[in-house]
Amino acid sequence: MTAVLTATSGRVTLKQGGGGRAMRALIEKLFVRDFATMPLHNPDFSVGVGAMDDGAAIRIGDEWLVITTDSHVIHPIFFPGGDIGRLSICGTVNDLAMMGATTVLGLTCSVILEEGFALDSLEAIQSSMIAACREAGAPVVTGDTKVMGKRELDGIVINTCGIGLTRTLVRDNGLSLGDRIIVTGSIAEHGLAVMAKRHEIGIEGDLVSDVAPLNDLVASVLSGAPGAVTAMKDPTRGGVSSALHEMASKSGVGILIDERVIPVTAAVRAVGELLGIDPLHVANEGKALIGVRADAADRVLEILRAHSLGRNAAVIGTCVAERPGGVILNTGFGKRLLAEPEGEPLPRIC
Amino acid sequence: MTAVLTATSGRVTLKQGGGGRAMRALIEKLFVRDFATMPLHNPDFSVGVGAMDDGAAIRIGDEWLVITTDSHVIHPIFFPGGDIGRLSICGTVNDLAMMGATTVLGLTCSVILEEGFALDSLEAIQSSMIAACREAGAPVVTGDTKVMGKRELDGIVINTCGIGLTRTLVRDNGLSLGDRIIVTGSIAEHGLAVMAKRHEIGIEGDLVSDVAPLNDLVASVLSGAPGAVTAMKDPTRGGVSSALHEMASKSGVGILIDERVIPVTAAVRAVGELLGIDPLHVANEGKALIGVRADAADRVLEILRAHSLGRNAAVIGTCVAERPGGVILNTGFGKRLLAEPEGEPLPRIC
Repeated sequence: MTAVLTATSGRVTLKQGGGGRAMRALIEKLFVRDFATMPLHNPDFSVGVGAMDDGAAIRIGDEWLVITTDSHVIHPIFFPGGDIGRLSICGTVNDLAMMGATTVLGLTCSVILEEGFALDSLEAIQSSMIAACREAGAPVVTGDTKVMGKRELDGIVINTCGIGLTRTLVRDNGLSLGDRIIVTGSIAEHGLAVMAKRHEIGIEGDLVSDVAPLNDLVASVLSGAPGAVTAMKDPTRGGVSSALHEMASKSGVGILIDERVIPVTAAVRAVGELLGIDPLHVANEGKALIGVRADAADRVLEILRAHSLGRNAAVIGTCVAERPGGVILNTGFGKRLLAEPEGEPLPRIC
Repeated sequence: MTAVLTATSGRVTLKQGGGGRAMRALIEKLFVRDFATMPLHNPDFSVGVGAMDDGAAIRIGDEWLVITTDSHVIHPIFFPGGDIGRLSICGTVNDLAMMGATTVLGLTCSVILEEGFALDSLEAIQSSMIAACREAGAPVVTGDTKVMGKRELDGIVINTCGIGLTRTLVRDNGLSLGDRIIVTGSIAEHGLAVMAKRHEIGIEGDLVSDVAPLNDLVASVLSGAPGAVTAMKDPTRGGVSSALHEMASKSGVGILIDERVIPVTAAVRAVGELLGIDPLHVANEGKALIGVRADAADRVLEILRAHSLGRNAAVIGTCVAERPGGVILNTGFGKRLLAEPEGEPLPRIC
């Protein structure tokens, strides 16, 4: 951890915003260490900042109140398949859903604008937020607006917080030996669509971001296969690789993945090869990694595939005793340890 | 409203971030109009985005869950009396307190950093956040970190959301004829301290920001004088003038203020005169405007003055039938209508 910070000469680097090891080191050193010492209101029934899960959870009566926050700094703000407005609603709805909170009590929306930002762009972003809110059944209940001077901010950033309720709290650390790992669809579409747009790579039209609200999909699994889910995480920055590493290391198991069954579209494979980027390391915004009990895997898969957002779901791996905290990739030609990414290959992907 | 937008040639202006009329017009047009149409989970017992209060409130059992959000973009990030870290904790704790939620279930902390930002500054800001959290008894429960490239962001911005609980929901629209208006201490210290620092005006050391968490002060009033408080608001951007206008217009009363009894320090008066800025229009970060029943005003004043953050509290006005929605200033030489500010005189004050 110290090494990462020393190597950067005491200054923040772009890697530290990339969602991988470098960022975890920064956050652990500066934020978690001290915030985690603060007394919580219901300490025996709380998931605080120390857990570094997708959000926090506080027990209220017989339910859990789940709280998440995300700032969205994506560039460009309009990209194939979405924009910063849709992303900021879906990103937060999905963080809630990953902890089981598929009922959204409310979202907050805090917008920071650069002086001179075009109002018609702002209206387009706002419309897109509204549409995503309707899809997710998630109301924005309060907000804030700030304006910074010209060249003090690159356009617009949006922070959203989410408050959700659930009786079934799901964590990212609950995997046990033998559990199966399911991905809810084809991977890396968000990150590669944004990168392709940024680099103006012409694609034959079918590489678009997967950005979508997953709460309805997750609700169908939690209600249709009670007790089946042992852990959940959405593979955003750092992609499937980063999320699996986090789940494995927090759960104290190894995860053996079969590379050949991971759903990857031809467009993703082509752009990934062109840019020299492994799709396993690239951000998704409409996919979940779900750990399930082995005997429930078929049932969960069936539920997922019956939903429009889970049609390409697949069982991609198993939790094993080898290499606890590590991710082992079966390539078909042999097994190798998957390296945990330092961070997302490119900044401002979400 | 349309006029404001047309006049700005379809682009966002700094005024629209200043907390006054221009900002309200932008927010109402773009955000509230559509967000307010979305169904809430408990519509009969909710304060949503349409109310444009300090936050939202949702009834859970026999309590109210209060939710607020604020992005902090202050410049400079270190100023006399505080820094962006202290400000971001206090600002959100105070928005909760203004709605009666003096018990903070949790705060979120989302930091956006510019590449190259100095880690020792970040550590100083973090320490200051921790200290403010301890003062307020408010734990940070979850967070997010993003990094933008060099010159894509001016240093650092911090978003905090707050989740609080209360049995006594206080609104900003509850004033009735005859109610007294109390300010909890001397005004305009935050805004003028920041402006003095920005303009490098040398002061004899005693002009510092008032940034402080008000939840304990408010709790002492709500518990010590039950039923006395009819409305509350913290006079941040746009100052006492903007907050009083909002309270008056939402409550449908006029507010008659006696200028001579408003607490203003000599330093504030001097710097205000030097910069040509009326302290009534300048942001506070550790003060509240409290509407109270006339017969309870003395009791509330006594409670406030017994608290270290309320020693200079004063009754400054009365709700009247004249000029509903307006603020009338008794200067001692006569009465005049106080103009509602377009916005804070300078951007990035909080």
